[in-house]
Amino acid sequence: MMADKKVAIIMGSDSDFPVVSAAVKRLKILEIPMEVHVMSAHRTPQAAAEFSASAAENGFGVIIAAAGKAAHLAGVLAAHTVLPVIGIPIKSSTLDGLDALLATVQMPSGIPVATVAIDGADNAAILAAQMLALSDETLAAKLRAMKQTMAEGVAQKDAALQAKIQEL
Amino acid sequence: MMADKKVAIIMGSDSDFPVVSAAVKRLKILEIPMEVHVMSAHRTPQAAAEFSASAAENGFGVIIAAAGKAAHLAGVLAAHTVLPVIGIPIKSSTLDGLDALLATVQMPSGIPVATVAIDGADNAAILAAQMLALSDETLAAKLRAMKQTMAEGVAQKDAALQAKIQEL
Amino acid sequence: MMADKKVAIIMGSDSDFPVVSAAVKRLKILEIPMEVHVMSAHRTPQAAAEFSASAAENGFGVIIAAAGKAAHLAGVLAAHTVLPVIGIPIKSSTLDGLDALLATVQMPSGIPVATVAIDGADNAAILAAQMLALSDETLAAKLRAMKQTMAEGVAQKDAALQAKIQEL
Amino acid sequence: MMADKKVAIIMGSDSDFPVVSAAVKRLKILEIPMEVHVMSAHRTPQAAAEFSASAAENGFGVIIAAAGKAAHLAGVLAAHTVLPVIGIPIKSSTLDGLDALLATVQMPSGIPVATVAIDGADNAAILAAQMLALSDETLAAKLRAMKQTMAEGVAQKDAALQAKIQEL
Amino acid sequence: MMADKKVAIIMGSDSDFPVVSAAVKRLKILEIPMEVHVMSAHRTPQAAAEFSASAAENGFGVIIAAAGKAAHLAGVLAAHTVLPVIGIPIKSSTLDGLDALLATVQMPSGIPVATVAIDGADNAAILAAQMLALSDETLAAKLRAMKQTMAEGVAQKDAALQAKIQEL
Amino acid sequence: MMADKKVAIIMGSDSDFPVVSAAVKRLKILEIPMEVHVMSAHRTPQAAAEFSASAAENGFGVIIAAAGKAAHLAGVLAAHTVLPVIGIPIKSSTLDGLDALLATVQMPSGIPVATVAIDGADNAAILAAQMLALSDETLAAKLRAMKQTMAEGVAQKDAALQAKIQEL
Amino acid sequence: MMADKKVAIIMGSDSDFPVVSAAVKRLKILEIPMEVHVMSAHRTPQAAAEFSASAAENGFGVIIAAAGKAAHLAGVLAAHTVLPVIGIPIKSSTLDGLDALLATVQMPSGIPVATVAIDGADNAAILAAQMLALSDETLAAKLRAMKQTMAEGVAQKDAALQAKIQEL
Amino acid sequence: MMADKKVAIIMGSDSDFPVVSAAVKRLKILEIPMEVHVMSAHRTPQAAAEFSASAAENGFGVIIAAAGKAAHLAGVLAAHTVLPVIGIPIKSSTLDGLDALLATVQMPSGIPVATVAIDGADNAAILAAQMLALSDETLAAKLRAMKQTMAEGVAQKDAALQAKIQEL
Repeated sequence: MMADKKVAIIMGSDSDFPVVSAAVKRLKILEIPMEVHVMSAHRTPQAAAEFSASAAENGFGVIIAAAGKAAHLAGVLAAHTVLPVIGIPIKSSTLDGLDALLATVQMPSGIPVATVAIDGADNAAILAAQMLALSDETLAAKLRAMKQTMAEGVAQKDAALQAKIQEL
Repeated sequence: MMADKKVAIIMGSDSDFPVVSAAVKRLKILEIPMEVHVMSAHRTPQAAAEFSASAAENGFGVIIAAAGKAAHLAGVLAAHTVLPVIGIPIKSSTLDGLDALLATVQMPSGIPVATVAIDGADNAAILAAQMLALSDETLAAKLRAMKQTMAEGVAQKDAALQAKIQEL
Repeated sequence: MMADKKVAIIMGSDSDFPVVSAAVKRLKILEIPMEVHVMSAHRTPQAAAEFSASAAENGFGVIIAAAGKAAHLAGVLAAHTVLPVIGIPIKSSTLDGLDALLATVQMPSGIPVATVAIDGADNAAILAAQMLALSDETLAAKLRAMKQTMAEGVAQKDAALQAKIQEL
Repeated sequence: MMADKKVAIIMGSDSDFPVVSAAVKRLKILEIPMEVHVMSAHRTPQAAAEFSASAAENGFGVIIAAAGKAAHLAGVLAAHTVLPVIGIPIKSSTLDGLDALLATVQMPSGIPVATVAIDGADNAAILAAQMLALSDETLAAKLRAMKQTMAEGVAQKDAALQAKIQEL
Repeated sequence: MMADKKVAIIMGSDSDFPVVSAAVKRLKILEIPMEVHVMSAHRTPQAAAEFSASAAENGFGVIIAAAGKAAHLAGVLAAHTVLPVIGIPIKSSTLDGLDALLATVQMPSGIPVATVAIDGADNAAILAAQMLALSDETLAAKLRAMKQTMAEGVAQKDAALQAKIQEL
Repeated sequence: MMADKKVAIIMGSDSDFPVVSAAVKRLKILEIPMEVHVMSAHRTPQAAAEFSASAAENGFGVIIAAAGKAAHLAGVLAAHTVLPVIGIPIKSSTLDGLDALLATVQMPSGIPVATVAIDGADNAAILAAQMLALSDETLAAKLRAMKQTMAEGVAQKDAALQAKIQEL
Repeated sequence: MMADKKVAIIMGSDSDFPVVSAAVKRLKILEIPMEVHVMSAHRTPQAAAEFSASAAENGFGVIIAAAGKAAHLAGVLAAHTVLPVIGIPIKSSTLDGLDALLATVQMPSGIPVATVAIDGADNAAILAAQMLALSDETLAAKLRAMKQTMAEGVAQKDAALQAKIQEL
Repeated sequence: MMADKKVAIIMGSDSDFPVVSAAVKRLKILEIPMEVHVMSAHRTPQAAAEFSASAAENGFGVIIAAAGKAAHLAGVLAAHTVLPVIGIPIKSSTLDGLDALLATVQMPSGIPVATVAIDGADNAAILAAQMLALSDETLAAKLRAMKQTMAEGVAQKDAALQAKIQEL
């Protein structure tokens, strides 16, 4: 039997790790195999290109790329593969992440990047799981359960809120 | 044998069709089965919710949602399914599509929307195909061929450009 | 005699409570009955839809919805009722609330959301009171008195300022 | 029996009328009495102030104000009344209406303006009707019927779309 | 001989004082008579209107108005006088002052507001002085001297910088 | 008797003239003497600097500067004079004038530019007139009359509107 | 003697040519040898990388890259060379070029792109010439002459304007 | 033999030094001679103009200019020289550097400024070095080595990351 497809999480700088770690944690919870790397579209372009070009044959199913500022990483990876590439725009010291958002999402026709919210690492992992779950009913069931748990969490918070209201 | 998974293309208004038609055309070229509907997060919320909640069992693999302004459609559909949902922010008469982009991409943790560029309908279809190709090697091969053709197109345009340069 | 209509305050996440509490306080001061809930357009869409669809018959007159990022909550609630829905865009960690503002205010034709300023919870409560005061002269009188008090407060601050000016 | 409360529609310039006329038409359809005026926060501030200060006693229940650029009209009217004031930000020749949106919605604590989308005149009228319907069940029924018709319109457009899809 | 014209500094809230105090200090240095008041376009509109309408006959030559968010104060004052009105957009808790800037500067034809930078209180005072100096050669000489001093300050900072460079 | 002070209107490019001509017309109506020039902060910096440095002694009282994009003209002129300088940000082919607005208004402490709305040439002329009117009661009277006429124009438009409303 | 260094002009799409042609024309006027190519960071990433990596040894001194939307081209080229890379952000159908500007200019530390104005192709060519002129006094003299001619052009436009003013 | 060309680093205010020092450090590492000055486009315009006009004959090859807000410094320097001028937009207390970016990059045709990222001082120095390296093979070799080191740094960070991943 073919092994499960892995998810690659690539970040442009190790300073992105505090944000990106939420994606790692989510994939661990969902028991999805992964590799995590620092690679830069600008500082190690050849390594990034090679990683992406051989990702499918190396057993990856989805690539998640996180980068800030003129965030080219997701686009550069998407240029070299037909695997779906998910982009996480990272907020940096200026412009509140708007630069990274536009540089990630506004891709030209032919090369899509599936962009999530600024600093939306958790959602990037869930989206990757949703893609893999298209051919993995066990994973789909986990996602449905997670959705149910999330809904129950909201209901619990609603209950907890009622006490606070009285105190005001 | 299980039939191929379909793609659903949902648009918030039929006025979005001139943009969205690019996605329809691309899916036709890639011979991916699809359904196309007008449904509104605000005017027909129940229909949208039901469509999404039953999309998986009705044979859909990916949902593409296109909407403008306070573009809630993709998010509302994503709330009811664990299928991947792709959002196309549509440019409308004001703010150049920035409103639709932010309303589509800035989803809270737990419910991702895979957002493409403003008016990026072609890329939404390609992204949907990439997701389906994870378990469909024939489709993956088509996508690789398309990428190759696209690269050759650039080379041809480069050749054609040389004549124009001489004329300046 | 029919009981006074209640105001519903719905927030998308309990992390919005520090902002939203200003609305709760204002309604308490104005002695307007209320319910306060955490409900999410994305995590508990069915609960939100049902709450809104039955709000009128459950004695609510106005719904206030507070949410951040791709703030769909007010729009989703407005989709299921003809009660006026007031939206409070909440500033979150990126984009300074612009995303929530646009996702709340730029509603398509047919489904208005009465949007107040980013983090403008106090004004949301006052606006709800103004709506209810259309058929409640006692409440209208309270609002006029509040306006008068507010004006006097400015005059007092003006007086207090004169001393500070001398010190510069 | 007390006459129905009227809606006032005030626009800052008669050049706003092509947009604002949608609000007039909607109120006519809903058979809500109205007055429509050109008044300027800057060119006729005294007239605007007086209109607003006496609006309640002159039989108005809601004021709709439409203005572009540094759109102060809604705020100025709201300063003189406790009636709910609805603001329509008007797109003008630069900045795509963002200036009018911010100048209308970002009101300081104490003086809310219920802001609708840029050029959202139809929604301003519907919102006004929703407010008046709080004490007018006949009007509420009309709004529910309108919502139903709107939903059926979407379903018809969905049906009509199917033919277009075949032609692509 | 006619007394020198005064400058009025009006702020919308006493919370603006830490920024506005720079204008007070500058006018003191330039020995220009002034009055400083808290008045609100929205909370005390009548007081603001009356102040402005009678400012010329009360001996004022220029009005400086500072306000944040939907900053209508300068525009409202300008509506009631032909004295030049200078607007200081104040940065508040969201949108970094962009809302106040647009609400102050984008005035419609006929009613200008001389807008300075966000939080630019010092420049508002200097601009007021420049206006008054048109008919006050002594004041003009002070402004020229201030400009000279400012230039010398830059030269001194340049000299001081050279030491720091060596240390790097 | 000293001649009336002139207004200088400087534009960065003759392509700005269709917008700037509104300022010329307004000054003609107000019978204020003027000179109009094309000078560029970047292409003829020395000419601009010299014009500004000698403007006061050449009989100018106010300088109006109009420029687009990275609009440095007003700031450069202000650097060389203590006359008040009014900046008109000009909308050009991209960014809707936001670049020119920020480059004009966000001046550093010490060198104010009195900024009017994007393309606000008429208001620039009125503002210049307001400054000159501080020591010219005849001009002040003209400005008050203009304000009165403007108010009457609004009243007439209001009257004219009533007919249109009936037709809807 | 070593031949003069060439300028490479690379555009991401041949649809950019109407804008980019201004750079070609300017280089022709300055008699600077050039090559012009269509290459895409996303569709032909390998070709772009190879071109850049070998540009220095192939006789190029400066690379100009023009691209729209998520404009990665300049950054990708800069990643593979230490030649200076000039980026021209191209305005496309949405967001007025802001996306291309931020994606071009906000480069991470280590890999600069010398960014010019949106659609600023003429300036990109002049900037390239300025760089080459650092070791080419003949070219420097041409640039100084061009600057002089430009200044004279402004003076001529100023003269021509005087007639138009009289006609108003 | 002619001495190496120097780089001038000019900042508009000594408060920019904490950002600009990164450029100084980089030039020191690359052993490029430099001068660093505080000069203001607005407070010492004549000094800035003279510095720039004589920079070439004083042995400078490139000018780097750093300024915030309505950042005119780079443009003013570029107006007086045909040396390449690099602009660093500095983030100040409002608008997150967007004002400085637009005021620096959006230069009119004829006078380019090579703009780097907001607060991108390190890249400004590297870009200056790239320009000088066009005629200095030793410097070019240093830049290539620096690029190699940078790539190795990314690889080391990738290795270091693997341990962190295990700990999550």
